[in-house]
Amino acid sequence: MKKAVLSGLGQRIAEPPISWLMKMTLDHPKLISLAAGFTDNTSLPVKQARALLAEVLRPGAKGQAALQYGSTAGDGELRRLTAEHLQALDKSGAPAMYAPERMLMTHGSQQLLYMVTEALCDEGDIVLVEDPSYFVYLGIVQSHGLQARGIRMGPNGIEPGHLEKTLQELQRKGQLPRVKLLYLVSYFQNPTGITTSLENKLGALKLLRRFEKAAGHPIYLLEDAAYRELRFAGDDIPSALTGGQDAARVIYTGTYSKPFATGVRVGFGILPEPLLTVVRRIKGNHDFGTANLLQALLTQALASGAYKKHLEELRVRYAHKAKVMAQAARAHFPEAVQWDEPRGGLYLWARMPESVGCGVKSKFFRKALAADVLYVPGELCYADDARRRKPSHEMRLSFGGATEEEIRAGIERLGRVMRELL
Amino acid sequence: MKKAVLSGLGQRIAEPPISWLMKMTLDHPKLISLAAGFTDNTSLPVKQARALLAEVLRPGAKGQAALQYGSTAGDGELRRLTAEHLQALDKSGAPAMYAPERMLMTHGSQQLLYMVTEALCDEGDIVLVEDPSYFVYLGIVQSHGLQARGIRMGPNGIEPGHLEKTLQELQRKGQLPRVKLLYLVSYFQNPTGITTSLENKLGALKLLRRFEKAAGHPIYLLEDAAYRELRFAGDDIPSALTGGQDAARVIYTGTYSKPFATGVRVGFGILPEPLLTVVRRIKGNHDFGTANLLQALLTQALASGAYKKHLEELRVRYAHKAKVMAQAARAHFPEAVQWDEPRGGLYLWARMPESVGCGVKSKFFRKALAADVLYVPGELCYADDARRRKPSHEMRLSFGGATEEEIRAGIERLGRVMRELL
Repeated sequence: MKKAVLSGLGQRIAEPPISWLMKMTLDHPKLISLAAGFTDNTSLPVKQARALLAEVLRPGAKGQAALQYGSTAGDGELRRLTAEHLQALDKSGAPAMYAPERMLMTHGSQQLLYMVTEALCDEGDIVLVEDPSYFVYLGIVQSHGLQARGIRMGPNGIEPGHLEKTLQELQRKGQLPRVKLLYLVSYFQNPTGITTSLENKLGALKLLRRFEKAAGHPIYLLEDAAYRELRFAGDDIPSALTGGQDAARVIYTGTYSKPFATGVRVGFGILPEPLLTVVRRIKGNHDFGTANLLQALLTQALASGAYKKHLEELRVRYAHKAKVMAQAARAHFPEAVQWDEPRGGLYLWARMPESVGCGVKSKFFRKALAADVLYVPGELCYADDARRRKPSHEMRLSFGGATEEEIRAGIERLGRVMRELL
Repeated sequence: MKKAVLSGLGQRIAEPPISWLMKMTLDHPKLISLAAGFTDNTSLPVKQARALLAEVLRPGAKGQAALQYGSTAGDGELRRLTAEHLQALDKSGAPAMYAPERMLMTHGSQQLLYMVTEALCDEGDIVLVEDPSYFVYLGIVQSHGLQARGIRMGPNGIEPGHLEKTLQELQRKGQLPRVKLLYLVSYFQNPTGITTSLENKLGALKLLRRFEKAAGHPIYLLEDAAYRELRFAGDDIPSALTGGQDAARVIYTGTYSKPFATGVRVGFGILPEPLLTVVRRIKGNHDFGTANLLQALLTQALASGAYKKHLEELRVRYAHKAKVMAQAARAHFPEAVQWDEPRGGLYLWARMPESVGCGVKSKFFRKALAADVLYVPGELCYADDARRRKPSHEMRLSFGGATEEEIRAGIERLGRVMRELL
């Protein structure tokens, strides 16, 4: 018997695109990065966090609780406030779906994605993802040796027709028992900015249920609503938790990191049994529970109204930055380049003509780098799925971290590269 | 093909002893818990944390950085200060061992234990643990489907003689390629309170290296120093990082949670390659990186001297509480009960005569519960290892969370149960 010292996961795990992109930034000190998923620096709630923490860290029991261990599931009051908040957003969902007992607080919603995948998937199992999808989730999938199947997206998000075709194909091949979940970034998706319509979302959920019998077990809808509250146009759309009976198969995850402060890593999940129990146990093994100080800060922010107030300011700020980027794109991108005006989130997704590659190894990417501007090549957001060639003519542009001046200059530089190569 | 919806890990993962013990507490509202690993409430640095955070959250770049994303490896300044601090503790180690570049900040040292295990171990692999060991680590081992082999402990910690015998036996059975690490809680061990002598520690490390060739790969020493700084008697002992050439096989992990505040979940690890890279990538998939606000708080605490000052006060406080527990034990425990005066950490380990079981299902445990006092049955701290019967005549008593009055009353009640049953 010969064995490597690293586990299967340890051997498989690839360098994440993010560290490769960061290296680029370090190698080009004058670079304007429209790649990083950082949030807007100037609107971080420094003053608010200071005041809230001064309130939390009063002498006595309240201050002590914030610095002591808590429970693995998370702070009871924060779970209650979060459940309430979510139920108010969703309006029409069955109250039982939003019971605080179904909720788990995590170090960012990323941790929930990781633990759910651990709880459900063995090497070789299949997860369905949007095509394209969030690249850090694809990293989790890759490291666990899972197979991803990309489901096509339209202007209203995931296309139920393609999902059905994919499930049928998997059934024919006898692979349905390996299918564990469909992962959906349902609001202002990372990377495309697309929001899935309620019709498509519930349609997808119904389809998953229809194939359960053939799978021999539930197939979950993992709804990642990380960007839900960063909305600056249109109305909010209810989550899949409003899907009636089918909502029993929904894992919903959200986060306070993006709408409040990314340095305060607090996310949450709502889970059905038996997943809830399993994921809570995994959380216990990861870290016992989310840092109480962070949870106490957010409880205070929610209870005092500071969260809501900050979010309103943040929306105005991101709406403005998105507009700055859209105006610059209108001025500098050639007509052949397609993109939609962002209605929320942090990203603008630009599509070259299919013949013009702007992937990691493209001339386009090199020229952009030479012009000191960085973007996320869209191909990094596509799962390895042998059924189709990875598109490489798209790019994710973030207006989150960059200043207005950087956005303007960065888009102008990109426009120049586009005109050169189109 | 039939498949369960849960993964292997999801199916295996057991209820942690901690939630079972917590349920006991809820069911008995008058219960005195000497079971919880909580830290002392009254000495939590509420005032200090408030002042430090007011300093951190100043308007401008510093405050913004604390609320923004950071790097996956952790804050550079905190890694530098931590490395410096550790090198000063160890004194004699090679400076290269303490390079901040070898360091990773985590959400508590628990997260590092989890990720190292993920990086090294596949189902069926073998880890060597102290007998008894830290039960949450045993939970990680159990959920990943690993085999644990308990290595005997003496008054100076792990017994190199028994380690050698175990390694020889594994070699004979051809199982050495499956052995990935030896897990050691080297200071004021949870649960026994024993500190491993430098001789035994480096002796164990040498043994692991000797068997590497037969294993076909490195066998790591995972040194968990969580309780190192909670010392109130005797001198500090250098870590295994001082082991010269052999230190290349040492993974060292420590934490700021226990010596500063458990609600501030910041731990760290020092890792050799290729583990460092692999674990950093896993960390990226878990949560991108440790919450910057927590890291900024600790950076400020270390840089300002507040950490050192608080730790000195904490030591005095725990020394006092340990003494209160020891005095009560002297007064109330029958002579047949063995225990050692704690010299650090949070625990007193009491041993009944072997014929007197005090395990989970014992009459002893039930009687104690009826007398409204809770302890951690020692048997929960033993790995599943078919080579020996699990001892069930020991108990872990914590003087961390309980008040002085609770400690006195709790020990008195336990003493009564002991006298009844001995």
